[in-house]
Amino acid sequence: MRINGQSYRTIWEAPGGAVEVIDQTLLPHRFAVRRLETTGAVAEAIRTMVVRGAPLIGATAAYGLAIAMAEDPSDAHLAAACDRLAATRPTAINLRWALDRVRAGLLPRPAPERAAVAWRMAAAICDDDVETCRRIGVAGATLIETAAARRPGVPVNVLTHCNAGWLATVDWGTALAPIYMAHDRGAPVHVWVDETRPRNQGASLTAYELGAHGVPHTVIADNVGGHLMQHGKVDLCIVGTDRTTARGDVCNKIGTYLKALAAHANGVPFYVALPHSTIDWTLDDGVKEIPIEERDASEVTHMTGRLADGTLATVEIVAPGSRAANYAFDVTPAHLVTALITDRGICPATSEGLAALFPEEAAAQRA
Amino acid sequence: MRINGQSYRTIWEAPGGAVEVIDQTLLPHRFAVRRLETTGAVAEAIRTMVVRGAPLIGATAAYGLAIAMAEDPSDAHLAAACDRLAATRPTAINLRWALDRVRAGLLPRPAPERAAVAWRMAAAICDDDVETCRRIGVAGATLIETAAARRPGVPVNVLTHCNAGWLATVDWGTALAPIYMAHDRGAPVHVWVDETRPRNQGASLTAYELGAHGVPHTVIADNVGGHLMQHGKVDLCIVGTDRTTARGDVCNKIGTYLKALAAHANGVPFYVALPHSTIDWTLDDGVKEIPIEERDASEVTHMTGRLADGTLATVEIVAPGSRAANYAFDVTPAHLVTALITDRGICPATSEGLAALFPEEAAAQRA
Repeated sequence: MRINGQSYRTIWEAPGGAVEVIDQTLLPHRFAVRRLETTGAVAEAIRTMVVRGAPLIGATAAYGLAIAMAEDPSDAHLAAACDRLAATRPTAINLRWALDRVRAGLLPRPAPERAAVAWRMAAAICDDDVETCRRIGVAGATLIETAAARRPGVPVNVLTHCNAGWLATVDWGTALAPIYMAHDRGAPVHVWVDETRPRNQGASLTAYELGAHGVPHTVIADNVGGHLMQHGKVDLCIVGTDRTTARGDVCNKIGTYLKALAAHANGVPFYVALPHSTIDWTLDDGVKEIPIEERDASEVTHMTGRLADGTLATVEIVAPGSRAANYAFDVTPAHLVTALITDRGICPATSEGLAALFPEEAAAQRA
Repeated sequence: MRINGQSYRTIWEAPGGAVEVIDQTLLPHRFAVRRLETTGAVAEAIRTMVVRGAPLIGATAAYGLAIAMAEDPSDAHLAAACDRLAATRPTAINLRWALDRVRAGLLPRPAPERAAVAWRMAAAICDDDVETCRRIGVAGATLIETAAARRPGVPVNVLTHCNAGWLATVDWGTALAPIYMAHDRGAPVHVWVDETRPRNQGASLTAYELGAHGVPHTVIADNVGGHLMQHGKVDLCIVGTDRTTARGDVCNKIGTYLKALAAHANGVPFYVALPHSTIDWTLDDGVKEIPIEERDASEVTHMTGRLADGTLATVEIVAPGSRAANYAFDVTPAHLVTALITDRGICPATSEGLAALFPEEAAAQRA
């Protein structure tokens, strides 16, 4: 993607055996690149959310092993580096997946070859992620282009929630990939960006991404989408998903369900974009079966932003003494989802739809 | 209502021909009483939102005329005071209604009597508002008490949006009146308080009110209510309304509609509390007929709260350069409203329901 005209991924190799990443802790307030030269620096970058988003965390951890192998290619150091990197974000599935994949590739190799192999594997993980997201973009862009063709010259209004953009992946993003793809191919797109309380990933990261790439967009409070849909101001919704059940229920950032209800009530198509790695073939009923993480209440009670002089400050915004609860995700039942946009194309949010696109995975689960 | 054990209204007469009000610009961060001794001070208090909420603005303006008549009971000063007070909040219907009512009561009176009459009229406007809200509370409390009786000992979970509490009225509030009434009569109540972005009246004013009165409550992001309803954690919703159509569509703070959709989808009763003065008998289809105010985008892009040292600060929270839109209200169609809680009791959200409770007003409109 582009930042003010220059092409970027969220992570890239740098001269001297290092990687560089965009420091996401400073976004949207400041753009800065962080150079990571040691395993410790990579672990710290993941832990402190300098990089975030499941695919990007996995890619960063893979590069962490490459750097570790340059430091010391022994089995002992490999094991220690894996443990150190895995401990940074204990619940991140992609992190462990990437570490296991690289470690499995390295163990059979003689130590002197390991660093070079690890660099190649990390690069391949990045390229795979980019290709997965690009395919989601290609599949989803047609939905926007079809809407654009219906009313030539009028921007297609897409509503999105949270950040499922390229900052969470290596490039393109998931929910935003169709938007970038359609925009780059010339379709007129305008994005309604849900603020996405309490962590405000919409107002900060999604708005930042879209702005840097030049996609017209407007930030709105999470309360606004229903009103917009009642008045025909949303042509389609595209959101991401953290976990998708075999029948197409989607678990995504809290508040997604409310937008799906509004879309359903107003005849607005509601699409969910996903790499097929988010499909949990062991689950069907997402509302009953997916545990919802409760996060620290301080995310609700406090807010960080820029003071007038540009410095960052955190203010408390609730009544003193009032407690807050912070449910991080909700589940949107499949019947509210118009279709799933995957790296293998678009399918209905049903067991049959998913099984038709991913027959080998569906079959493996039945076996 | 009580603030830490002491009974308060939001406005009261003070010795020396003055009134005192709770300075709402400092809430929820600090509780302070402001003494208003001159017409100018009253006008300034309304303009700067030291007092806010339609009923309270009307009551305050009435006291402003009383103070004006003590300053100078001439026709000229009365007219000037009305103009000055009316100009403070140009779109507030209750403000103009209160001024017209007091002026009409004063004009036939000889000048020397006017101050005393105005004080009595202002007090009557306050008492009428308190009685209206108390009646809403009595009607609505039965809904909470009925829910409590179904599961003895378990708190009834009520979700509310924005602030329709006693800080917006003289006492009791509208949507919160049933909650206070049920709580005071011993029913176990817990309130889920929607933060209510962008102005956060839930997290600030509603949470403050409930906390000061001792009602258990939890602040949640606006995104959360649907998830709670899916999991049986909301027994009923009660919200206020700024404008109610003759068939029961309700225009309330932005985001109300999304909660009504979630309540409907999950079989949770959704009640709207209103003084009958909010009914606009000339309108039927709220979505089509009620214009929705767009407010300044800075309410979305900026947030005010307490720094760690207790001082207030305003931070900017969206990506630099991104624009924001700020629709202030939305309309919930009557079919999503379980019932209306009015000062004359509870009725279905239908033309017939409202006409049965308010036959004279419905008939006047048909005439």
